Amino acid sequence: MTRTVDDETPAAKAEARDKLSGLEYMRQLMAGELPRSGMAGLMNFRLVEVSEGHAVFAVSPDERHYNGIGIAHGGLAATLLDSALGCAINTMMPPGKIFTTLEMKINYVRPLRRETGEVRCEASVLHAGGRVATAEGRIVDAGGKLYAHGTATCMLFRS
Amino acid sequence: MTRTVDDETPAAKAEARDKLSGLEYMRQLMAGELPRSGMAGLMNFRLVEVSEGHAVFAVSPDERHYNGIGIAHGGLAATLLDSALGCAINTMMPPGKIFTTLEMKINYVRPLRRETGEVRCEASVLHAGGRVATAEGRIVDAGGKLYAHGTATCMLFRS
Amino acid sequence: MTRTVDDETPAAKAEARDKLSGLEYMRQLMAGELPRSGMAGLMNFRLVEVSEGHAVFAVSPDERHYNGIGIAHGGLAATLLDSALGCAINTMMPPGKIFTTLEMKINYVRPLRRETGEVRCEASVLHAGGRVATAEGRIVDAGGKLYAHGTATCMLFRS
Amino acid sequence: MTRTVDDETPAAKAEARDKLSGLEYMRQLMAGELPRSGMAGLMNFRLVEVSEGHAVFAVSPDERHYNGIGIAHGGLAATLLDSALGCAINTMMPPGKIFTTLEMKINYVRPLRRETGEVRCEASVLHAGGRVATAEGRIVDAGGKLYAHGTATCMLFRS
Repeated sequence: MTRTVDDETPAAKAEARDKLSGLEYMRQLMAGELPRSGMAGLMNFRLVEVSEGHAVFAVSPDERHYNGIGIAHGGLAATLLDSALGCAINTMMPPGKIFTTLEMKINYVRPLRRETGEVRCEASVLHAGGRVATAEGRIVDAGGKLYAHGTATCMLFRS
Repeated sequence: MTRTVDDETPAAKAEARDKLSGLEYMRQLMAGELPRSGMAGLMNFRLVEVSEGHAVFAVSPDERHYNGIGIAHGGLAATLLDSALGCAINTMMPPGKIFTTLEMKINYVRPLRRETGEVRCEASVLHAGGRVATAEGRIVDAGGKLYAHGTATCMLFRS
Repeated sequence: MTRTVDDETPAAKAEARDKLSGLEYMRQLMAGELPRSGMAGLMNFRLVEVSEGHAVFAVSPDERHYNGIGIAHGGLAATLLDSALGCAINTMMPPGKIFTTLEMKINYVRPLRRETGEVRCEASVLHAGGRVATAEGRIVDAGGKLYAHGTATCMLFRS
Repeated sequence: MTRTVDDETPAAKAEARDKLSGLEYMRQLMAGELPRSGMAGLMNFRLVEVSEGHAVFAVSPDERHYNGIGIAHGGLAATLLDSALGCAINTMMPPGKIFTTLEMKINYVRPLRRETGEVRCEASVLHAGGRVATAEGRIVDAGGKLYAHGTATCMLFRS
């Protein structure tokens, strides 16, 4: 029997992650060999680049992401940043090593609107130690204009 | 002609906010007299309490909010916190005065899951000056257990 | 031979902390039975209250703490906050368990000046888990006016 | 009458800043034509590089900077970072425009000790708008090893 994406459950994915390094896992996710998460689907995020210490997620802001005053809710940028920062740190994890995000901080520099078009959140690891890792990320549009930036702190442990 | 919720557009809402204080606006939103935002609908947030300097939003985590490892994505707590912190600050704004969030910081203390049940994000203003306001918030379950906490910094100006 | 405060070295203090709980250690420090640290001396900080989950440090801003424009440098409030947050978390540590601060965040709400008089930084633990603890603190003057507030995230481990 | 550095008071410095751009002011400070601040003296900081959007401060950690457990207090890195971030933003300010720091966030990655030798805090502006600016900075040793990193948010206004 062929296992399809629809058969995958979070448990199956957690098991997959146990045998794969974080980078292999993220590459399978980007290739569509693992299903994207509920939140990535809800927000319409796409993982577009992944390499050791780096990850890029993309999204096109639209009215579903809006707050009450006609711009994207701050939660859009925060969720996109959290995805990219966690993914960047995940690329540094060998099989059997996982992380949890302890805290995240985001600066909002410009509002995101439908007219902004697709934006990318580019994240890079700043520090990867044995127990703690930190990463930074920036949300930019096609012209390189900055919309938000931030950092996260993660704790690492054996799964 | 009776104006219904469906007629409301972000422009109409922005105009409404120009004549209402932030607190009056949030009360109409809670009463369903103004439509909830795209993001509040997408995430399934409910504004459940609002008073001068305080706001509480609630959500029941479910699989739509999940990341790839079977717990709610950090973006759920971040978006909920951003909503509650901004709303708490909005309650201090007179008609014609608005704010923009400059930055937000969140600490993740425990994972949110479907089994957690409904959680509340309780936000309070820490400082409300003429040009800057800050607020703090905590996400707790029905038993008062802490899941996340954070703060935001907002800049205030005339609309 | 009686051990005096002047005999104490950081190594002796680290050894002391190994046998004392964090709270006992902080109480001895407040009573002057252990010497204050180099930084506390440089900045002229006093530890004025300590109990389980709480700590208060005090300082009187003066010209030594100033930046180039006639108010206290942001480092004064940041250092005071870091002291109080760490001390509050230390009060939760049993003998042999120590912590390291992973990150701190501070909001500056009003400038500190010599004329402000003595200010207190009141810190409280928000979350104390097995591996991570968080705390918040506020710097207030004698009249309770808020000057700065912030939070820290610490990682806990066996010494 | 020749004005010497010793004659300079904070008021005179504030007046100087009103006629100079932030960059000219920082260059005079680095050249010793303006006195360093109380805090820079207390901590023994040196401003070693300044250009548009960038600033570097240096310090050699010693026992005066220590906390109770034989490493530099977190306030050393926080104060150094606050100096460098503020100075980087100051380089973008024309005459008559000043800023105030709203918040700062710092991640501690490795402990600073006397044996570490001189460290540099390299700060760069991330965003410089009309009303808000943000900057990031990193503390590194002579070999480029990272000890701390962080960001700040500043509000700009006419003096």
